[in-house]
Amino acid sequence: MNNEGSTGGFGLDSRLVADCHILWHTPQSDVLLMDKPMFRPWFILVPHTHVPELIDLESEQLKAILHQVAALTRFVRAEYQPDKINTATIGNVVSQLHIHIIARYHDDPCWPGTVWGWTPDNGQSRDTQGYPVAEVEAIRQKLLNAADLFC
Amino acid sequence: MNNEGSTGGFGLDSRLVADCHILWHTPQSDVLLMDKPMFRPWFILVPHTHVPELIDLESEQLKAILHQVAALTRFVRAEYQPDKINTATIGNVVSQLHIHIIARYHDDPCWPGTVWGWTPDNGQSRDTQGYPVAEVEAIRQKLLNAADLFC
Repeated sequence: MNNEGSTGGFGLDSRLVADCHILWHTPQSDVLLMDKPMFRPWFILVPHTHVPELIDLESEQLKAILHQVAALTRFVRAEYQPDKINTATIGNVVSQLHIHIIARYHDDPCWPGTVWGWTPDNGQSRDTQGYPVAEVEAIRQKLLNAADLFC
Repeated sequence: MNNEGSTGGFGLDSRLVADCHILWHTPQSDVLLMDKPMFRPWFILVPHTHVPELIDLESEQLKAILHQVAALTRFVRAEYQPDKINTATIGNVVSQLHIHIIARYHDDPCWPGTVWGWTPDNGQSRDTQGYPVAEVEAIRQKLLNAADLFC
């Protein structure tokens, strides 16, 4: 129970657990992969906190989280070479503080629109299918191989 | 021409100029008000830079911009008491680096959806009208009165 501080009793929101793969537990956050492989890829960073907005984090925790957001953004750029990176804290549906970091491409399914609220037109398409396990593991390995970015 | 550095020749994107009211030129950024009064309000902070992503800013400029984003977020919370604040860098349509800071309410026109891409159902409604000049000036005054937040 030591050092829990404001993170005591932290647990991931059940909607995030349902919609994502958990890639990595860092000391400050969890890094998730949204289970929508048509976005290449869509990461979510969840700080270990109960506060609703980034501005509510204590100074040191905010600094650590912003560092991780920057690291994840650099990782996305280096590894996936997207046309643009979308970064956002929204939280209208899932109130637990989380930050989206999404690789976007001119040929992705909803470019130049945003990914939130987008649904595939055709319920029969691959767009409704999640990641194969092996692909999640491959992304996790790439991320862990770049872990020094986060230090 | 002194001290222009990487901001030399900076000018606002024409789409931002067309869609927004310019509220405030700070030394590091311009603060805009999206001309959609159904969102109460929707601010956009435009750093004086030519780089495409926040991670590309030099360390001191990034620090200053993140400080301003936090200040604008605190201003929005204190002045407008929204149910949630949405913060994002997207840039799929306007590539010039800009950060959205939007007050969101459970009864706003597209809650819990995001504001990007939202259009009013009825072209005849008030939702298609922009701000009256007096209202823009009132928001500008509130912002300037809170300018110490930005220092």
